[in-house]
Amino acid sequence: MRSFERSANTIRPLTFERGFTATPGGSVLVRWGTTMVLCTAMLEEGVPPFLMGSDKGWLTAEYAMLPGSTRTRKARDSGRGKVDGRSTEIQRLVGRALRACIDLRRMSGRTLFVDCDVLEADGGTRTAAINGAVVAVHDAVARALERGDVTASPLTSLVSAVSVGRVDGETLVDLDAVEDNRAEVDLNVVLTDRDEYVEVQGTAERGAFDHAQLLRFLDAARAGAHAVRDAQRAAMRERAR
Amino acid sequence: MRSFERSANTIRPLTFERGFTATPGGSVLVRWGTTMVLCTAMLEEGVPPFLMGSDKGWLTAEYAMLPGSTRTRKARDSGRGKVDGRSTEIQRLVGRALRACIDLRRMSGRTLFVDCDVLEADGGTRTAAINGAVVAVHDAVARALERGDVTASPLTSLVSAVSVGRVDGETLVDLDAVEDNRAEVDLNVVLTDRDEYVEVQGTAERGAFDHAQLLRFLDAARAGAHAVRDAQRAAMRERAR
Amino acid sequence: MRSFERSANTIRPLTFERGFTATPGGSVLVRWGTTMVLCTAMLEEGVPPFLMGSDKGWLTAEYAMLPGSTRTRKARDSGRGKVDGRSTEIQRLVGRALRACIDLRRMSGRTLFVDCDVLEADGGTRTAAINGAVVAVHDAVARALERGDVTASPLTSLVSAVSVGRVDGETLVDLDAVEDNRAEVDLNVVLTDRDEYVEVQGTAERGAFDHAQLLRFLDAARAGAHAVRDAQRAAMRERAR
Amino acid sequence: MRSFERSANTIRPLTFERGFTATPGGSVLVRWGTTMVLCTAMLEEGVPPFLMGSDKGWLTAEYAMLPGSTRTRKARDSGRGKVDGRSTEIQRLVGRALRACIDLRRMSGRTLFVDCDVLEADGGTRTAAINGAVVAVHDAVARALERGDVTASPLTSLVSAVSVGRVDGETLVDLDAVEDNRAEVDLNVVLTDRDEYVEVQGTAERGAFDHAQLLRFLDAARAGAHAVRDAQRAAMRERAR
Amino acid sequence: MRSFERSANTIRPLTFERGFTATPGGSVLVRWGTTMVLCTAMLEEGVPPFLMGSDKGWLTAEYAMLPGSTRTRKARDSGRGKVDGRSTEIQRLVGRALRACIDLRRMSGRTLFVDCDVLEADGGTRTAAINGAVVAVHDAVARALERGDVTASPLTSLVSAVSVGRVDGETLVDLDAVEDNRAEVDLNVVLTDRDEYVEVQGTAERGAFDHAQLLRFLDAARAGAHAVRDAQRAAMRERAR
Amino acid sequence: MRSFERSANTIRPLTFERGFTATPGGSVLVRWGTTMVLCTAMLEEGVPPFLMGSDKGWLTAEYAMLPGSTRTRKARDSGRGKVDGRSTEIQRLVGRALRACIDLRRMSGRTLFVDCDVLEADGGTRTAAINGAVVAVHDAVARALERGDVTASPLTSLVSAVSVGRVDGETLVDLDAVEDNRAEVDLNVVLTDRDEYVEVQGTAERGAFDHAQLLRFLDAARAGAHAVRDAQRAAMRERAR
Repeated sequence: MRSFERSANTIRPLTFERGFTATPGGSVLVRWGTTMVLCTAMLEEGVPPFLMGSDKGWLTAEYAMLPGSTRTRKARDSGRGKVDGRSTEIQRLVGRALRACIDLRRMSGRTLFVDCDVLEADGGTRTAAINGAVVAVHDAVARALERGDVTASPLTSLVSAVSVGRVDGETLVDLDAVEDNRAEVDLNVVLTDRDEYVEVQGTAERGAFDHAQLLRFLDAARAGAHAVRDAQRAAMRERAR
Repeated sequence: MRSFERSANTIRPLTFERGFTATPGGSVLVRWGTTMVLCTAMLEEGVPPFLMGSDKGWLTAEYAMLPGSTRTRKARDSGRGKVDGRSTEIQRLVGRALRACIDLRRMSGRTLFVDCDVLEADGGTRTAAINGAVVAVHDAVARALERGDVTASPLTSLVSAVSVGRVDGETLVDLDAVEDNRAEVDLNVVLTDRDEYVEVQGTAERGAFDHAQLLRFLDAARAGAHAVRDAQRAAMRERAR
Repeated sequence: MRSFERSANTIRPLTFERGFTATPGGSVLVRWGTTMVLCTAMLEEGVPPFLMGSDKGWLTAEYAMLPGSTRTRKARDSGRGKVDGRSTEIQRLVGRALRACIDLRRMSGRTLFVDCDVLEADGGTRTAAINGAVVAVHDAVARALERGDVTASPLTSLVSAVSVGRVDGETLVDLDAVEDNRAEVDLNVVLTDRDEYVEVQGTAERGAFDHAQLLRFLDAARAGAHAVRDAQRAAMRERAR
Repeated sequence: MRSFERSANTIRPLTFERGFTATPGGSVLVRWGTTMVLCTAMLEEGVPPFLMGSDKGWLTAEYAMLPGSTRTRKARDSGRGKVDGRSTEIQRLVGRALRACIDLRRMSGRTLFVDCDVLEADGGTRTAAINGAVVAVHDAVARALERGDVTASPLTSLVSAVSVGRVDGETLVDLDAVEDNRAEVDLNVVLTDRDEYVEVQGTAERGAFDHAQLLRFLDAARAGAHAVRDAQRAAMRERAR
Repeated sequence: MRSFERSANTIRPLTFERGFTATPGGSVLVRWGTTMVLCTAMLEEGVPPFLMGSDKGWLTAEYAMLPGSTRTRKARDSGRGKVDGRSTEIQRLVGRALRACIDLRRMSGRTLFVDCDVLEADGGTRTAAINGAVVAVHDAVARALERGDVTASPLTSLVSAVSVGRVDGETLVDLDAVEDNRAEVDLNVVLTDRDEYVEVQGTAERGAFDHAQLLRFLDAARAGAHAVRDAQRAAMRERAR
Repeated sequence: MRSFERSANTIRPLTFERGFTATPGGSVLVRWGTTMVLCTAMLEEGVPPFLMGSDKGWLTAEYAMLPGSTRTRKARDSGRGKVDGRSTEIQRLVGRALRACIDLRRMSGRTLFVDCDVLEADGGTRTAAINGAVVAVHDAVARALERGDVTASPLTSLVSAVSVGRVDGETLVDLDAVEDNRAEVDLNVVLTDRDEYVEVQGTAERGAFDHAQLLRFLDAARAGAHAVRDAQRAAMRERAR
């Protein structure tokens, strides 16, 4: 039996606590099963050098795990002066996924800083980060509209992310840590609310996968992303505290 | 009027959410007014090189602020490869304060890692970190006793920390960020439950202070520490979830 | 017209100069159009800490661009002490792709170091790196078998990588730098010689892509990978100098 | 018997060799017992970013130990790219103590760089650094006045620092290294020449200390600081070479 | 017998493949025996801070060894964040040698970046780097003249570098790696085409050398440099591809 | 007229204060004109990895300038995590020069750490460092013999270093900073007490130098080194304090 007594194609309970901290424009504590990620979004003045003089703003994302988020304590990156390879890969994925639902020309001269800090890691932290971050961006944009920092919402769509894996030959949606460690194939998909792909990242962890299997993974992932989208929409309908 | 409608010698509302995350032996979310710090304590095998071959264990503390914890986003230390000076000073203070209430010989061969991550910073983060960390250490020790990782509790006392400052000539207990920025003098005190000092750190931010003033600060600090201690004891009486 | 006067589904001229340098077990200069990557493979004693005591060897890959490989000089990573995010992402991809065609148990106690250094970058450097690295690994394995460093070849398959992109609505195979900069979608596929996927990485650079488009990209990518595989096999049939 | 045949409340012989090197505006070799610290003060154009546009100057202090200053050679920080925690704590203390006796508005647009390099460490290096640095600042200010770089002296007071400790239950003033290693409590005090505190830093190294003990430490520290002040004044009366 | 069946005062076969890569203004693959170095020269806008506001341009050189260039794989500097001591010494030598044959005032406002990357190391990599770099600079200058980036050639002379060593008491010109490891004395000389010295660097690796020996080394080095110069001139007479 | 009213071939006043600090085996404050360098030598247990298992010891040298040693304050390397290129070059030179007068087999299992810290820089710091370091090594060896840490002195010769330069066409010995900045050629020589060269490093700073000039520089350097040697011998005859 899977954790949270769910079937192969069901995601874990997914909630979004908006306004978890008060300072950032958007601050969302995502709980997905026992995975917990704090996503904040802050709109600040300035753009990176490669955009200076252009009419575009920017969105950048960072991802990190707190030392206590993993079973064995994870040493901080600050001791090494560099983000580890896995975190680099994830934060680049998060950034691309969010930029895909933003019109950067509506944020001219400003940068939206998205920070995803994993408080507890039980699988699916990268998809949880994306799902929470888009809600935090939504709230930061709302505050920026209120303050007049932007005049039209740069958000063009909602994105929803989910993992699919093959474990013991079976296709499972939204893997927890135990399942992730045993997965033969791991596929992460980011889908817009128009059911278009923004990212498809499939990796054979043990053995390879044929075309027919890839099609099954993609079908399962789209269905999972729909469930994620429902949870996001429910959270976004509530008034932020 | 001070925040939370309190008098000069009153501390802000102080709560400790134990077991906030499940993985670490101790995991405490401290909320002190709007300051919020996640303190985790994990007991792991091994000691630093300078203790190898001795019969003592070790306790080490790290302190960091999440990027979204401050009004203007705080860049991560991982980009610079070093902890900033203020954080270094604070994490050394936290480590010393906690080691003062631990008998390291009862943790032979093990290190207790304490991590204090500031989720929201509104003044008093270093004292909040100490106050929450000692509760997290208490819970980590309880789990270690259950598991037989230690045979007798290494905790020898409870410590409570509070700040006192002089603002516009008045002595205030437990400064929030607005008060802290205006303080002429800033004094942090860490007190055991036998009313003995473990740390006294007084700094003139603007102008100096005479001996009579120092005595007034110390009296106010001890009273504040008593209020902190009450809140800690109330939290520790509850069954951890 | 595309560079090298080719059609939408044709790859650029692809050659592998084996034994380009003499010291490493495998040393392959890949030229793909005007992209040029030196791939070396060296089998050395020792494994990383997480494999010590196991019966497995390891394969690790690094990817870097020489300063003169890009139109504007690329500053060296050595000045910053960290590999940039894009290179980190690529070297993780190269490592995973190669480990997928290696039986690590046949390299017990040893690590195969794969280094991909881009001498000239005109698009497709990550796929060129994978394609050349697998030939270099093949040669390093042959030398290790000759020397008796391994007793059976750990190579279990050949992998071939190719990029596909959508440019101005058209699906193109093996993008050069000009096309890559204009691509709306970018998909990299790594395929085994049994036509199974090892990696599928699709990213919407501008706009998203629907399921039907994804299927077209995948078909084009598989056909492109077959052309790559033919070039690899032709090179591997020659006697290394 | 204590080193230099002194009583519990007597400081070690303390001398200040002004103009030890010629280049800096202030250059003072402090010898305190066998502890030796070179303190230099240089007034340079420019202020840190957070003061740009203000009417204030800045004073910053750095503290380091030469490799040969300690019994076992101390590796240089340059190999690690970061100042160790203890040095960070000390240089922040030195900076705060000196800024407390400076009117930064009289140094508008300039920064006073204070460097304290320990040539020999036998206890009391942080207090020696403060005591010598204030003399070096005095000399650098005198040179700046001569040159017209400042029009009025920014020095508003003299500060004097001393350590007090409890060793075997006895209160000792100005601990040497042997005493420091055995101290149960360690208190450093920085006092102005109006007998006001600028810093009070008390730490329980082994066990805690009660309020009555703290009062005794403070009395001993003030007396010790007076002896330091006498030595500073004697040195400052001499004409700098 | 020496490698390449040569006598004590003969250099190894030395070739320069100009235009090896297309992007940089100058791109030369030097092969000297089995030593192989890729030298690129790129003229870019801007000068370092110490030349801002002057009428001079700048030339800077970097030197690195690819991981696969040495018998045992050489770890990349990017992992350490600093160039190793030997490479630092070499790149400073290369920079000085090239600046000695450049009139920096003819490159006002621009910097010539020279990169020497060792693809295969079999002794003489620093001299190979200088010899190839000067040809690459020659080509980069020619392109800059064509484009009008400079109006008069800044190249004032050709420089040629060679090593001389004493091995088993015998004076050898152009040492390979085996000879270099056994050398008692190692002398590197950089000579202009007017037979003047730009650099003379002699080091006793084992034992010292007297004045008479030094004179013999210098004579041998000048003769070797003449042979290098002939090879450079032959290469430069060919039309770059 | 040159500084210290000396002729073209005369060195500045050169003194060695032995036992300047008490902790290291050797501690020498060199004053050469107004240049001042503290050289310490400490013999410690252990050898670097590449010598483990051999019968040899090691000698390593580090060189740094204190922030106050230069006219404009020199930022510390600790902020950058790497030694600057010039210091790297110098410390490698110092290490080679000292290893040339040491029999490493007589220091089996131990490393002699030599630290040269420039307190004041007025030209000739690298030659001052070598000259002082060899006296410090002499003292450290004497202490090691007394303690029985080594059984026979590993010192096989004395080395003496001096700079020579061409300024306005004239050959000058022992350049101060003003002369060094104007030098057209700069030659540093390290000579044993048997008048053999250990290092010859000549660099054309502006223009090149012909063979006849080189011979004149070498003659002047040898004469200068003799004067250095006399000062070293005079200092070493005194009893260290």
